[in-house]
Order: sequence, then structure tokens, then C-alpha cells
Amino acid sequence: MQSDLVQLVTGIAQRARAASLVLSTATTEAKNDALLRLADLIDSSHPGLLAANQLDLDQAAANHLTGAQIDRLTLDAGRLRRLADSVREVAALPDPVGAVLEEWARPNGLYIRKVRVPIGVIGVIYEARPNVTVDCAILCLKAGNAAILRGGKEIFHTNTELAGLIRRAIAESALGALPVLDAVQLIPTTDRAALTALLKLDSLIHCIIPRGGEGLIRFVAETSTIPVIKHFTGVCCMYLHKDADPGMAETLVVNAKVQRPGVCNAAEQLLVHSSAAESLLPRVASALASSGVELRCDAASSAILARAGIGHKPAVPADFKAEFLDLVLAVRVVESLESAIAAINRDGSAHTDAIVTRDPAAAGRFQAGVDSAVVLWNASTRFNDGHEFGFGAEIGISTDRLHARGPMGLPELCSYKYLVSGSGQTRS
Amino acid sequence: MQSDLVQLVTGIAQRARAASLVLSTATTEAKNDALLRLADLIDSSHPGLLAANQLDLDQAAANHLTGAQIDRLTLDAGRLRRLADSVREVAALPDPVGAVLEEWARPNGLYIRKVRVPIGVIGVIYEARPNVTVDCAILCLKAGNAAILRGGKEIFHTNTELAGLIRRAIAESALGALPVLDAVQLIPTTDRAALTALLKLDSLIHCIIPRGGEGLIRFVAETSTIPVIKHFTGVCCMYLHKDADPGMAETLVVNAKVQRPGVCNAAEQLLVHSSAAESLLPRVASALASSGVELRCDAASSAILARAGIGHKPAVPADFKAEFLDLVLAVRVVESLESAIAAINRDGSAHTDAIVTRDPAAAGRFQAGVDSAVVLWNASTRFNDGHEFGFGAEIGISTDRLHARGPMGLPELCSYKYLVSGSGQTRS
Repeated sequence: MQSDLVQLVTGIAQRARAASLVLSTATTEAKNDALLRLADLIDSSHPGLLAANQLDLDQAAANHLTGAQIDRLTLDAGRLRRLADSVREVAALPDPVGAVLEEWARPNGLYIRKVRVPIGVIGVIYEARPNVTVDCAILCLKAGNAAILRGGKEIFHTNTELAGLIRRAIAESALGALPVLDAVQLIPTTDRAALTALLKLDSLIHCIIPRGGEGLIRFVAETSTIPVIKHFTGVCCMYLHKDADPGMAETLVVNAKVQRPGVCNAAEQLLVHSSAAESLLPRVASALASSGVELRCDAASSAILARAGIGHKPAVPADFKAEFLDLVLAVRVVESLESAIAAINRDGSAHTDAIVTRDPAAAGRFQAGVDSAVVLWNASTRFNDGHEFGFGAEIGISTDRLHARGPMGLPELCSYKYLVSGSGQTRS
Repeated sequence: MQSDLVQLVTGIAQRARAASLVLSTATTEAKNDALLRLADLIDSSHPGLLAANQLDLDQAAANHLTGAQIDRLTLDAGRLRRLADSVREVAALPDPVGAVLEEWARPNGLYIRKVRVPIGVIGVIYEARPNVTVDCAILCLKAGNAAILRGGKEIFHTNTELAGLIRRAIAESALGALPVLDAVQLIPTTDRAALTALLKLDSLIHCIIPRGGEGLIRFVAETSTIPVIKHFTGVCCMYLHKDADPGMAETLVVNAKVQRPGVCNAAEQLLVHSSAAESLLPRVASALASSGVELRCDAASSAILARAGIGHKPAVPADFKAEFLDLVLAVRVVESLESAIAAINRDGSAHTDAIVTRDPAAAGRFQAGVDSAVVLWNASTRFNDGHEFGFGAEIGISTDRLHARGPMGLPELCSYKYLVSGSGQTRS
């Protein structure tokens, strides 16, 4: 059984590798043709997709899914229309492949070009969101990569139906003639042993992107011998410097915490400079409280809010390293810009942090000193996002420092290679 | 004992992380000051270094080292002078940190800058070459990274002496005042359990670079939960297209195979187009044979060489996937450009491959279709090298596709982050 699974995933990976070698030089037109056909197929396949989705929903209770999880896996006509639209948006994006990133001549006459090429075969390991199936498939395809998708058992039927549409779109498109039918494959089992076997195929698969909860990501990172780009937790901080504009401070902290508290770039912690805490904190805290945010305060901020008569709770040490993903905010007072930077580097997750200040020098020191993927000055942490950066689409927000950091768009799904032209040069 | 080792390496990693946060904003002048002091210290410390090296040499027999291995670990006055020179060369290279890689404004007024920053903490795992200790330390330092070095037991005494000099150079330099004394640390034990523990510290160490034999690299890739940049084998191919200039073909193949056969960018395989094999192969083969190269031939090339009376051996299938690192070359005839590309993608190691042809279209198709880090046209495979690319120094040649591919210089030892400036923007 175990060896059958190894054979199964090895076959999938070998077909993906073969497809990737052809797909890597496919034209932009052929790739877009497949994408636009997929969008049309999604539009014309609502009945089949919704029926498959219903099979997954029927098992949601047996799978012990929460209400939020059931909501994420549920498809309806509106969500399917938005899914098809997102495919058309990716078709409209520029093709990242083939761009000359750098070129130069050497004194011996060699001419070197560094060109962007697909990575090759990318494995995406995720949980129960059907839009991830389509997003990852189309972004990998547009960037010339073959994709192997492994979703959770909670959306197995929906994924199988979607994967069938993707394969049909490729077959009927200009890509089908190449042929790259195996450019997008779904692992047809959710057996954990198949996943483990897949994560060891480092001679065939070049990159693994896990998307999901911390448990899944940790399992993948610990098991995989293939390079992994992780999308981990965001313990994001807003720091109010001593000269922060009070109105801007209030607006930005409320936006960073409240606008969508369940996502990785929502603020989880507020730090306030001690010399401004008395004036700033009551105003910001009262705005947060009226938005239903629970404040967990250190001794200094608690004393200020108590004097102002604003409700709050005492923080425990773990609150200052927590990703609440909820209407909860840890609050503390710091003695200096340097203490704020040190606290964020120690307790944050190097994801997204922001300073509110009128002082460009303080902003510059904060942006240089805070060791995070995105460091903002006078803006909400919620802007760490591929769409907000203008990337058009994102496959996720990398918390790694190698290859891609922060929002990952199409160029980040590519590697590069060097093309060297000579006239008979030898090395001595 | 086990837990003592975990504590030991955790302490080292924590100190490295603290040092890296300071080092990341150190000035170019301060970093160069440390490098130049190190070069002077190496120059003035020959007696101590040679005495430590002698202790390692005394144990070489007990460690079962081969003659080549003993040669690699042996220091003498000339090698020490070249080591000091290489440190001065890195000091003279431009600082990669702080470069603005891209910048753009968003319609909402946000201004985004993508700037190059150090990766953070880099662990280098290697075997028995003392110059790796210095090379990796100085390249990491120049790029603003803290380095944790773990060399093999065969050079433990030499490494300990070199690490002492590096620490002294930092302490006496402008960096010492920051303080970043722990910017370069040597793991003071070669116990394998300490290495295993180190490779699990993914919250403190951001990148692992293994340098050495395949066994070491495989162990590191399988054990590490930290991202690894691998420097694997090179099964490099030279392909002679049907219109290759005979003189150039001879010169390039001999250079690629013979000039330094024991390195990863030496050619291991020769492919010749069938319609030119009769005319090209005898000339090239006889030049190789006079350089002492053993030719392992497929049936078609063997028949041609037999007719020409040139000595050779029959190849076994494994020869066409082998990294000989010796004066041995696998030879085969292919029916077309496409067969050459397919054979190289199937049997090569995606490291370095070259075509010899007068036809720009054939060269273009070969460079696009061959899925390797460096693909050359009319030049020797030996040019896949940081110095030959003009990088000034290299930490190795990456065989991975993520982050860095091919020669890794100072910029490849960096990550990036996004600095976003606003005026109170919120997300809706």
C-alpha cells in the first residue's frame, strides 16, 4: 500500500517534470488561451461544481469543520463568478518569463544574460479553500511552472471537479497541442503517506508552497527535502512614536486591527512611546473599544487607561508574542524608539510592522532597524498584500527570507538562468 | 549530554541573531575595517596558524584522509598570503546592502521601495578546507550577515585558530564598538548531534549553506528545517552541433574536460550530432586521448573511433549520469538538437551545459530548452564561476532554483525588504 502510494506520486511528479520542460518555453498566447478557456469552463460548469461542492458540504459535520471553515469551502454562483474573473485577471497580467534581468560583457568577450525562467515543478500543499486550487494552478501555469496540488480531504470532491476543468481547458487550448496535459495535477488521495512521499521527491519537484495553518506548514517544513517557501504567522505591530499625529494614529491602529482581524497582516500589538502615551492612548483605545476590540495591557498602559476610565484587561507575557486573528490587541508602553525596535524584533514575527510619526529620521531608523518583510511609515499594516502592492495577484505572503519575502506575485514564482555567448573562449 | 549540546548551539544561535540585528545596519567602512584587520592578522600570525594546522596534519592518518584531502587542508606561507589577499579583495568589493532594487508609487499615494538587506543568520556546514572558513566568514560579514561555521573534525585546530583571529579582528575594528563580536562563531565541537540540533533552530537561523561531498549535503537537506541552498554535483555536458567549427570544438571540449577535471563545472559528457560525428569525433577524441582522457563510448561513437583507430572503452548506462571528477568522459552520438536537449535534461544535473555551433537559431533553441543554471554557446563549461562572471568572489555555485542559481556572490547572500511610506492610508 505504502509502495503503491510512492509509485503513484512518483508517476505524477515524473509527468509534471516532463510537462514543465515543455511549458517552460510555451508562448504567452498559448498559456493565456488555456486560462481564458478555464474561465469560460468555470462559468458554464456551475451545476457540476456546486454538486461536487455539496458532496464535501455533506461531510463537513463528519469532518468536524467549524462554521468559518464550512463558509470557506462553500461555493455559490457569486463565488464561482468571482473565481472565473480572477482567472481572467491573471490572463491579463504580463508574462514574467523571458525577461532579461541583467546583461553584461566580460573582458574576454563573453556576453552574459541573466534571464527569468520558470522554477519548474511546484507542489502546493493546502487545506480546505477551493479558490486556492484555482489560484495556485493559474499562477503556476502563467509563470510556466507545472503544478502538483494537494488539497485537504474536506474539499476533495470540489477539487477533483475543478482539476478536471483545468485539465480540459489545457487540453482544448493551444497548450494541449504541445502537449502539456499534466501541467496541473491533483494528488488523487489525501492519504498522509502520499504527501510524505511527495515531499521527498527532490529530484523531480523544485519548490513546495504550503498554505494553511501552522500545523500543516510545520509538518511540511520538517518532512520536505524539497525547498519550501513558508507562509507563516503574522504577529504585526503598530508603533506610535512620541510625535505621532493623534488623528492619524487612531485611524491607522483601528484600520490595522479591525478592518479584517482574521488575516496575517492585521495588527496584533500596539506599542506607544512613553512620552506620548498619556495623550495618545486614551483616544486610540477608546476608538478600538467602540469597535469591540479587547485590549490586553501591560502595567504602564493599564494605569493610563484606568485613569481615563477605559475598559481593558491585564496582559500575560504570551500576549506580546500572540497572533490573535481576532478582535484582541496587546498594548504596551515603550521608553524609546530603540526599545520599540528591539521589542518588535524580539516578539514579532518579522512579517509586517508600522510606525506612526511626523519625524522622517525616526521613520528611517525604524524602517532600517525593524527586521521585517514589510515596514510601513504612516500606513496600516493591512497593506502587505500582493494586490495592494500592484502585483495583480499573489500566491501568498512569504515569511521566509530566501527567494521571496513578503507578497509573492508571478515574478516570485520564477527562477533565473544565465545564458552565456562566446566565440571559443577557454579558461586557463 | 545531548541536551548540553542543544543548549550550546542554541546559545550560539541566539548570540548570532543578536549580532545580526546590529550588523545589518553597520556601515561599509566598519565592515571593511574588520576585514582589513583580519587580512593583517593572518599575515602576522603565520607561526600560530601553521602550528595549529600541524596538529590537524598529525591526525590526518588517524582520520583516514587521502593525499588529495591532506593537500587541501595543508596551509603554508604561500597559501596564507593568498588567503589574506582574498580577504582584501572582498573588502574592496561594493557593499550589496542598502541598494534600492525597485521603487514605485501606488495610486493611493503609498510609496514602496524594495531594498536589499542581509539575510540574517547563515549557517555554513563544510568539511576540511581551511579557506572555506575564511571565505564564508568574510562574505557573510561583508553582506551584513552573522555566520555560524561548522567545519569538519579534520581541520578543527586550524579552524579554531582562524576563528580566533576573525573574532580579534572584529573586536579591534569599528564593528567591535557596536558590538558584534558574535558576528562570526565557530561551533566548538564536531559532534554530529550538535549539527543536528543546529539544523533545527529555524527561529534563529535563516539559511544553511552546506559545502562538501554529496553525503554531507544530503544529510543537511534531509535534517534541516531551515532553508538550505545546496551546492550539488555537476554532470556538465558539451554538445557539438552538426555545424560546429572543428577547431573550436576540439579546443572547448579539451578545456572543459582537462583544464581542472576535479571541479563541478568540468565537462563529464560529450554529445555529438550524428551528421557531424564522423568528421568531428576522431579529431576531438584524439586530442582528448593525448591529454590522458579515458573515453567511455556508446555504440555509435565507439564504431567511429574504432574505424579511426582511437582507443576508448564501452560505456555502461550509469556513465551517462556520472560525475567522474577525473580524466574520464562519457561520449555519445545524438540524432538531433532536440535529442541532445532531451538527453541533457534527463541525464545531466542542471548545472552547466554548452553547445558548439555556428547557427544562432540552434544556439537559441539549446539555451532555451536546456534547463540548467548556466547554458553556454561556444564557450567552455568551466566559465560557470563567480570570478569568471565578474562577481569578485563566490560562496559557491548553487544547484537550487530558489533564491540563487549558479554562482553566488555577495548580492546572493542578501534578502530584501519593502519600505512603505504613507500619509495615513487605510485599507477598505
